[in-house]
Amino acid sequence: MKKSLIALAVLAASGAAMAQSSVTLFGIVDATYAYGSGSVANKSQLTNSGYNSSRLGFRGVEDLGGGMSASFHLEAGLNNDNGSGATTSTNNQGASGVTGGGGLTFNRRSTVSLNGGFGEVRLGRDYTPQFWNLTVFDPFGTNGVGTTQTLNSSLGGPTTVRASNAIGYFLPGNLGGFYGQAQYYMGENLSNAANKKDGNGLALRAGYANGPINVALAFSDTKFLSGNIKAVNVGGAYDLGMAKIMAHYSQDDVKNGAEGKGFLIGGLVPVGAGEIRLAYSTYKIDTVGADPRTNKIALGYVHNLSKRTALYATYAHVSNKNGAAQSLNGSVTAAGDNSNGYDFGIKHSF
Amino acid sequence: MKKSLIALAVLAASGAAMAQSSVTLFGIVDATYAYGSGSVANKSQLTNSGYNSSRLGFRGVEDLGGGMSASFHLEAGLNNDNGSGATTSTNNQGASGVTGGGGLTFNRRSTVSLNGGFGEVRLGRDYTPQFWNLTVFDPFGTNGVGTTQTLNSSLGGPTTVRASNAIGYFLPGNLGGFYGQAQYYMGENLSNAANKKDGNGLALRAGYANGPINVALAFSDTKFLSGNIKAVNVGGAYDLGMAKIMAHYSQDDVKNGAEGKGFLIGGLVPVGAGEIRLAYSTYKIDTVGADPRTNKIALGYVHNLSKRTALYATYAHVSNKNGAAQSLNGSVTAAGDNSNGYDFGIKHSF
Amino acid sequence: MKKSLIALAVLAASGAAMAQSSVTLFGIVDATYAYGSGSVANKSQLTNSGYNSSRLGFRGVEDLGGGMSASFHLEAGLNNDNGSGATTSTNNQGASGVTGGGGLTFNRRSTVSLNGGFGEVRLGRDYTPQFWNLTVFDPFGTNGVGTTQTLNSSLGGPTTVRASNAIGYFLPGNLGGFYGQAQYYMGENLSNAANKKDGNGLALRAGYANGPINVALAFSDTKFLSGNIKAVNVGGAYDLGMAKIMAHYSQDDVKNGAEGKGFLIGGLVPVGAGEIRLAYSTYKIDTVGADPRTNKIALGYVHNLSKRTALYATYAHVSNKNGAAQSLNGSVTAAGDNSNGYDFGIKHSF
Repeated sequence: MKKSLIALAVLAASGAAMAQSSVTLFGIVDATYAYGSGSVANKSQLTNSGYNSSRLGFRGVEDLGGGMSASFHLEAGLNNDNGSGATTSTNNQGASGVTGGGGLTFNRRSTVSLNGGFGEVRLGRDYTPQFWNLTVFDPFGTNGVGTTQTLNSSLGGPTTVRASNAIGYFLPGNLGGFYGQAQYYMGENLSNAANKKDGNGLALRAGYANGPINVALAFSDTKFLSGNIKAVNVGGAYDLGMAKIMAHYSQDDVKNGAEGKGFLIGGLVPVGAGEIRLAYSTYKIDTVGADPRTNKIALGYVHNLSKRTALYATYAHVSNKNGAAQSLNGSVTAAGDNSNGYDFGIKHSF
Repeated sequence: MKKSLIALAVLAASGAAMAQSSVTLFGIVDATYAYGSGSVANKSQLTNSGYNSSRLGFRGVEDLGGGMSASFHLEAGLNNDNGSGATTSTNNQGASGVTGGGGLTFNRRSTVSLNGGFGEVRLGRDYTPQFWNLTVFDPFGTNGVGTTQTLNSSLGGPTTVRASNAIGYFLPGNLGGFYGQAQYYMGENLSNAANKKDGNGLALRAGYANGPINVALAFSDTKFLSGNIKAVNVGGAYDLGMAKIMAHYSQDDVKNGAEGKGFLIGGLVPVGAGEIRLAYSTYKIDTVGADPRTNKIALGYVHNLSKRTALYATYAHVSNKNGAAQSLNGSVTAAGDNSNGYDFGIKHSF
Repeated sequence: MKKSLIALAVLAASGAAMAQSSVTLFGIVDATYAYGSGSVANKSQLTNSGYNSSRLGFRGVEDLGGGMSASFHLEAGLNNDNGSGATTSTNNQGASGVTGGGGLTFNRRSTVSLNGGFGEVRLGRDYTPQFWNLTVFDPFGTNGVGTTQTLNSSLGGPTTVRASNAIGYFLPGNLGGFYGQAQYYMGENLSNAANKKDGNGLALRAGYANGPINVALAFSDTKFLSGNIKAVNVGGAYDLGMAKIMAHYSQDDVKNGAEGKGFLIGGLVPVGAGEIRLAYSTYKIDTVGADPRTNKIALGYVHNLSKRTALYATYAHVSNKNGAAQSLNGSVTAAGDNSNGYDFGIKHSF
C-alpha cells in the first residue's frame, strides 16, 4: 500500500547537504459500482472509495541536519464519480464549522511537522488518535459497504475520524515496537461564549507492534456544552501467515446522554494475488427506552492487478434491532428491518 | 495541441517491468478580453477560455503487463480571470446536484480506466458521447464567442456536455479507423422517488477517421420525469490541405416538450504560423406558438507563438428571430434583436 | 525566501530550443498557535500564516525565443489548520462577488503573462499596485499578529490587496534600478446597471531599488457608486547591514465618505541564524464626529532552521482611541480598549 511513487528531486540551494529532501505527488482514484437495498428504498450508484479512500495529495520532507527534519502533508478527499471534493471542519463542532462547499479541500490531512530524536510534533488537521484502532483493526479499513459498524453507528461525534486545529505529538520510531501519540485539538470559540470549550479535546493512543502482533489502546475526551464525549477503544491483530486475524472493541459515552458499545472480529486471508476479507461487527446504543443495535456481516475479495491497481467486490448485510435503522450504500430501511449492499470496483493509486 | 508536456518519471517498486508508467501534470491558462454588445446592455470583461478551456489536471498510466494498463485523469476547470474553480454535478439533474461553490473541482473529467485489447472501460465523470460531434466539428471547438449556436441554444439538458456517475466503454484503437464508445450514466435517485430515473442516460457514438476524413454519429437518451431528452447528431470534417472544412447537424427532442434542430458549416484555413477560423451555425426551437431561431456567424484568427502559446482574436454576430434572445459575451439583447461580441486573448498550455 | 525549489524538466516537443522552459510546484505550510486577548473576549487558536502566507501553487515559464517568453502563475491560499481553501472575488465588489465556499481557489494569484524586452503584460487575478508598499515596507510582511495597522484599519476597500479581471503591465527589469507597474481591473457589470463602474479601477506604482535602498510610490482609483476610493502610499527601506530600517505612509480617501491616514516605522535586525522584527504603526480615520485611531507596537523573532524552515514568535499590542475597537488574533475588545496577542509557529516552504 505504498503510495510515494513519484518522488520529485528537490533542487535545493544547499545541494548535497539536503540529500533526504523530496516532494511527492500522490493519490488514489477508486471507483465503485455500489448497490444498496432496504425495506423502504434501494439505490444504485457509481460512487468512490469502496476499497481505499480516493484522494489527491502533496507531501514532502526536508532534512534539517542533526537528525532533524521538517515535513508537510496536504491530502484532499476526492469524489471521483462526479469530480467534487470533500468538506472539512473549521471548528470540530459539526454543522457549524463545515466548509468547502464541494470544492477541493485538504480535509483528509493538512499538517506541518518537526521531526527529530524526540519524535514528531505535528500541527494542523489530522486523524484523531481515537480513530486508528477502528480502521487499522477493520479488515475493510473503514471503506466501502463493509465498513465496521463500530464506526457507522458511532456516537463519537465530530472528531471521531479527524480534528482540525490540532497539536499532535508522536513518539519516535525506535522504541522496540512501542508506539504512541497524543493530540490536543481546539474548537476556537471566544472565551465569553457559553459553549467556549466546544470542539476542544485531548486524545491519546499507545500500542505495540512487533513481528506478527499489533495491539493498541486509545482514549479521547472532547468537550461539548451539550455533553462531553469520551471514547475508549482497543484493538489488535495477529498475522498467522495463512491469515491475519483482527478484532477491536469500542465505547463512546456522551455525558448526560447515550452510551454506545460495539466490537468487531474479522480477518484477511491471502489467496494468490488476492485477499479475502471478512468481518462481523456490532454496535449497541443505550438510550432511554429502546436500545437500538445493529449487527453486520461483510465479505469481500480484492484482486491485485499490480501493487497500485486492484479490482474488488464486497457484500454486506446489516440487521437492525430495537429501532435501529442502519442501511447500506444509500438505501433506506425502516427501523428494525435489514439492509443489503454490494460494491464492485477498481482502485488505482499513484 | 499536445498537452502532456511534463512527464514525471515514476519510481515504481517493480522498476523496469513498468516501463510505460507515468504521471503527468498539465494545464491551460487562457485569458481573454471579451466584449459583448446587445440591444439592452453591453459587457466588458477579462474572462477565460476564449480559445481553449482553462484547466489544471493530473493524469497517469500504469502498465499492468500483458497489454493491459490502468489509468486515471483528473481535470479541473479554471476561471483564471479571478482564480475560482468550476462547479460540477453530482446527479446529472441540473441545479439540484450542482456542487463546488467556486472552489476547484475536477468537473471537466474525473475518471479511472482499465485498458487492454478489448478497449477501455472508464468510470467516473466524463464528456458524454453526444457532445463530441458538436465540438470536434466546430472550428471554434465550442470555446469563446465563436462557439457553435447548436451548443449555445441546445435543448440537450444537463448532460449535453458531461455526465457524472458514468460507466463508459471505448473500442480499441486498432480497428482500421473505426472508433466508438458507449456510456451509461446514473442520476442516483432512491428507488421510491417519483423521479427515480432522472439523470439516468445511455449514449452511443461511432465514427470513422482515416487520412483526411473524419465522420461520426452520436445518439443519447436521458431520462427525466419532466420529459426524456433524446439527442442525435452527426458531423464530419475533410482536410483539403489548404483548408479543413467541417459541418455538423444536431437535433434535441424533449418528450412532450420542445424540439430543437440546428447545423453548422465552417472551416479552418492554415496561414503561416496561424489559422483562420470561420463558421456559420443556426439553431431553431419548435415550441407551441413561436419558433425562436438564432443564426450566428463567427470569424477568428489564431497566431501560434509556439506549440504551447497562441494569441487569438474572434468576432461573432448573432441574429435572433421569432422571440429568440441569444446574446454574446455576457451582454443582454431583447427578443428578436442582434448581438455582437469579440474576444482577444492569449492561451498558454503546460 | 526563494520558493522555486522543485523544477520539473519540461519534455517539450521542440527540445533543445526551449532551454528555459519549466513548471514548478511550490508552497508554504505555516502553522501558528495564536492567542489574542481583549476587554470582551479572548481567543486561542491553531491557525496559519503567522509568518508567511500558506499556499500551494503551480507556475511555469516557456521560452518563446527572440527574448520573449510566456508564463503562468496559479497560487491558492491554504488554511492548513483545517485544510480549507480561501475565497476569491469575481467582481472586486466585496460580498457580492465572493466565491469559493472554503474550497481551494487560486485566490492569491491566477495569471498568464507575455514577457519580452518591452516588459511584462499580465492578465488575471493579481496583487494590486497599491498593496505592495504596505507589505514590502512592513517588517512583518502583513502576516500574523504583527501586521501593520495601515492595512488592518485600511479604508481601501475590496481591492486593497488583490483584484480580479486585471490587465497589468510591468516595466522591464533592466532600467538601472527603476521599476514600475500599471494595472487596470474590471468589475464586469452590465452597461445599463446603476453601479456599472463598481469594481473598475486603475492603479500605478513606481520605485527605485539599488544596493541598500528601495523606495516606491503607488496610487489607485477604484470606482464605486457609493463613493470612489483613492489610495496613495509611499514607502522605503534602507539596509544598514546591521539592520534594515523601513517606513511607509498610506492614505485612503472614500469620496463623500471617510478618509484614513497612517504610517509605519520599523526594522529588521539580523541576529545569527535569526532576525528580530519590530514596528510601530498607526492609522486614523476622519469621519463625522469621532476620529477613531489605533496605534500598534509589534516585536518578533524568526529563527531559521534552514532556508525553507523557520520557527517564529511575535508579540503585538494595540491601543484604541476615539471609539476604535481593533483587536488582535480573533479576540474582541470594546471601543477604546486595548488588545494584546502573540503568535508562536513554524513555517515550512517547498
